[in-house]
Amino acid sequence: MILSDIGNTSTKFFINNEIKNYFKDDEIPKFNDEIFYISVNEKAEKKLLEKNPNAKDLSTFIDFTTSYKGMGIDRVVASSFQKDAVIIDAGSAITVDIIENFVHKGGYIFLGVESFLKAYENISPLLKIDRSDFEKNINLDKIPLHTKDAIFFALLKSIISPIIEICKDKNIIFTGGDGEFLSSFFENSQYKKDLIFENMKRIIDANNCIA
Amino acid sequence: MILSDIGNTSTKFFINNEIKNYFKDDEIPKFNDEIFYISVNEKAEKKLLEKNPNAKDLSTFIDFTTSYKGMGIDRVVASSFQKDAVIIDAGSAITVDIIENFVHKGGYIFLGVESFLKAYENISPLLKIDRSDFEKNINLDKIPLHTKDAIFFALLKSIISPIIEICKDKNIIFTGGDGEFLSSFFENSQYKKDLIFENMKRIIDANNCIA
Repeated sequence: MILSDIGNTSTKFFINNEIKNYFKDDEIPKFNDEIFYISVNEKAEKKLLEKNPNAKDLSTFIDFTTSYKGMGIDRVVASSFQKDAVIIDAGSAITVDIIENFVHKGGYIFLGVESFLKAYENISPLLKIDRSDFEKNINLDKIPLHTKDAIFFALLKSIISPIIEICKDKNIIFTGGDGEFLSSFFENSQYKKDLIFENMKRIIDANNCIA
Repeated sequence: MILSDIGNTSTKFFINNEIKNYFKDDEIPKFNDEIFYISVNEKAEKKLLEKNPNAKDLSTFIDFTTSYKGMGIDRVVASSFQKDAVIIDAGSAITVDIIENFVHKGGYIFLGVESFLKAYENISPLLKIDRSDFEKNINLDKIPLHTKDAIFFALLKSIISPIIEICKDKNIIFTGGDGEFLSSFFENSQYKKDLIFENMKRIIDANNCIA
């Protein structure tokens, strides 16, 4: 069985407990195994189905109650089976979902780290920052004295300050490409790399949907 | 006398106490009056000088001490003549500069509102938000229950939460296109639309630089 999470930036496959990422211009292979997928990206979904017409959309099997209108299926899956938690999926966007006593109370959509970096670069080439440089050289204790630090500090604080306000002392579960990095700034947090795929499996098991 | 502030997004002229904005593809007129300018945009500066070769770069007249490396001349001018204040210039980027007892202690560069909106749209067309809708419909008291509110809340909080942390109870002076809008979220703040041009005048007066 192969699981697939089709996102805005890439299509992820979970094959033998390993994640494989396919980006916009990558060719999607034809797989022999049964595929279950969720998708927030119609174009990429079509691309998957061209080669794998029997792939099954798992969204039809999901039973999730919320007053939130238009919640992406990846957020629904990540938020499933939680009692009291804040689920943060940190990709090109950072979605923050609040669960209280198994009820989804609403959520927030922040820009992801990569989207911030691109947006700075789009303002001016002088504001272009190298990603690995950013992760290695953050100092939140001093007032910045050059452009790079001025952006590092502002970028990181733009993400973590409002999330700290939202979460207070709640239990936070991070997932997504930047989940591990961001998790390090929150005491009451853990990082679950495969949260979405683990929950997809639970949904499949609960529904006996394997043919 | 005409003053000009050449920024990343537009070239502003201050003529008879009114601001005129010229964007990337607009033709810059040939003016008859004497022009003093500051610039953070080489290309746009060249465009001004093609038509107005006698325009004077005011940066050579500015005496400003800071340990900050590579501070944009617009930030230098906005931060001049201040005793104790946080100067926030809210344009495509939002620069935040800390002045204590006439000494510039450092600063921060946040994304501006417009840059946030573009960055959301670049992630997915589903995250495209209308600017006027954003300004009219912000509610920071409820957990958002649809995409638009989820972005409104996150966008605004990404800007104001870290700035509140930085400024604490300091006196804040906002300027720039989004200065008035953002100022409304800070109690200890005022909005000075023409701060940069007022300070340019003071620099000109102090230096007797009119030929």
